[in-house]
Amino acid sequence: MRFAKGHGTQNDFVILPDPDGRLDLAPGLVAALCDRHAGIGADGVLRVVRTKALGGALPDGAEEAEWFMDYRNADGSVAEMCGNGVRVFARYLAQAGLVAAPVFPVATRAGVRTVEMGADGAITVDMGAARVLGEGTAEIAGRPYRGLRVSVGNPHLACEVDGPIEALDLGRAPAVDPAVFPDGVNVELYRRDGADRLRMRVHERGSGETRSCGTGIVAVARAAAHASGREDGTWQVTVPGGELTVRLDGGRALLTGPAVVVAHGELDTAALG
Amino acid sequence: MRFAKGHGTQNDFVILPDPDGRLDLAPGLVAALCDRHAGIGADGVLRVVRTKALGGALPDGAEEAEWFMDYRNADGSVAEMCGNGVRVFARYLAQAGLVAAPVFPVATRAGVRTVEMGADGAITVDMGAARVLGEGTAEIAGRPYRGLRVSVGNPHLACEVDGPIEALDLGRAPAVDPAVFPDGVNVELYRRDGADRLRMRVHERGSGETRSCGTGIVAVARAAAHASGREDGTWQVTVPGGELTVRLDGGRALLTGPAVVVAHGELDTAALG
Repeated sequence: MRFAKGHGTQNDFVILPDPDGRLDLAPGLVAALCDRHAGIGADGVLRVVRTKALGGALPDGAEEAEWFMDYRNADGSVAEMCGNGVRVFARYLAQAGLVAAPVFPVATRAGVRTVEMGADGAITVDMGAARVLGEGTAEIAGRPYRGLRVSVGNPHLACEVDGPIEALDLGRAPAVDPAVFPDGVNVELYRRDGADRLRMRVHERGSGETRSCGTGIVAVARAAAHASGREDGTWQVTVPGGELTVRLDGGRALLTGPAVVVAHGELDTAALG
Repeated sequence: MRFAKGHGTQNDFVILPDPDGRLDLAPGLVAALCDRHAGIGADGVLRVVRTKALGGALPDGAEEAEWFMDYRNADGSVAEMCGNGVRVFARYLAQAGLVAAPVFPVATRAGVRTVEMGADGAITVDMGAARVLGEGTAEIAGRPYRGLRVSVGNPHLACEVDGPIEALDLGRAPAVDPAVFPDGVNVELYRRDGADRLRMRVHERGSGETRSCGTGIVAVARAAAHASGREDGTWQVTVPGGELTVRLDGGRALLTGPAVVVAHGELDTAALG
């Protein structure tokens, strides 16, 4: 089985080219691939499949995109969309010669996303709308945090904090009110690092603290804009895994950041656990 | 740059074929390769180089082995020997057709080790002598543990415990007397699981708790033999990453366990961090 490995701000993926949709991607195989000691190791798998090779019902509008990003979490479960994964997916398509134009659509389970390959190596993805839902609270390491509930397709609580965020303890899942967050929530702690610069850490539901989270980065930019009474604008956001830019523009959020493919080769699936 | 990835009882390695010794394996490159998010991810790197292509002084007797295992830790530092790594190294040589005989020598910085490829997929490595040095103590999570100091080329403290070892807290480095362990120490906690069966966990100096440690497995077999008043014998040792066998025979320790290569391919070194 052919594979590649890449990452976007250290959110990393095993990429499986499967243009004709022939792979049977069982959850156990995904988990074995993502195992960081017995497999290749990754936060998730990106299967690269032609939209027209997909069996079953297509996501809305998917037929306008040549390629579908079949994204799976490291535990093998199906996932909808990943702001870092889609850049890595786009980098793979471009390097493999599977797309030619610098701007192209990618179909995902969350709908079609437009990707733009920058001349500087950065890739921009239209993340759709980031909607402010209201205030919310979470308890982290015994301390209460107030923040803004933001939906970027998935639920976020973006909490602005004073002072350095590096020493805060995100080792355990933040405690939240299940009546307010029935599907759980991704919690961001961020601080302002200048007029349009933010620094953040994130605890992803189901994964724990991660080095980068595309939708979380969009959520804190939206929360910072809201706190400033603005709708649009551009924010530089630093996460443990790197630096990204969010542009809020007429209701849409455009996320720009790096993505690289570091290796490609052949897997011996019989040798996987 | 060509690479492979493999593991022995979940101690995992990036393998770099370099028969003619042309790679400049700078510490920064090793660390970038071993980075589990931005690189391939591994506990260490095994460079596969012909002994005769080595520049500089050869380890004692190295010229009798065709292949030298240039082993580096994940931080890029040079290391001497690794009981799991040498099995993965041997598996790579055999699968790549670089050795033909089922028994062959491998040169390491700790001397030449004889490897035997088993018909059942297990690989046996002569780990040399495991010497009992005397008693010792360590404090782990506030509790004192008594054990046996054993040298397997590197220092170990093998502590037999009563009851289950799964719940013990090995999150922090055990506290030891620096006068007794001037170079630090690898600490094993083990319990008997039958007459010749042991179950162990290990805290490796400089690495923290790991899923397997070849010399640590030999150390607990030697300690269990000592406690039974024996010199020779065979022990099955279960570690979090799998199961291995140690045979103590006339002063030598033979370690047998699995090793697989799960992938091979090409690295884009320019894309590494």
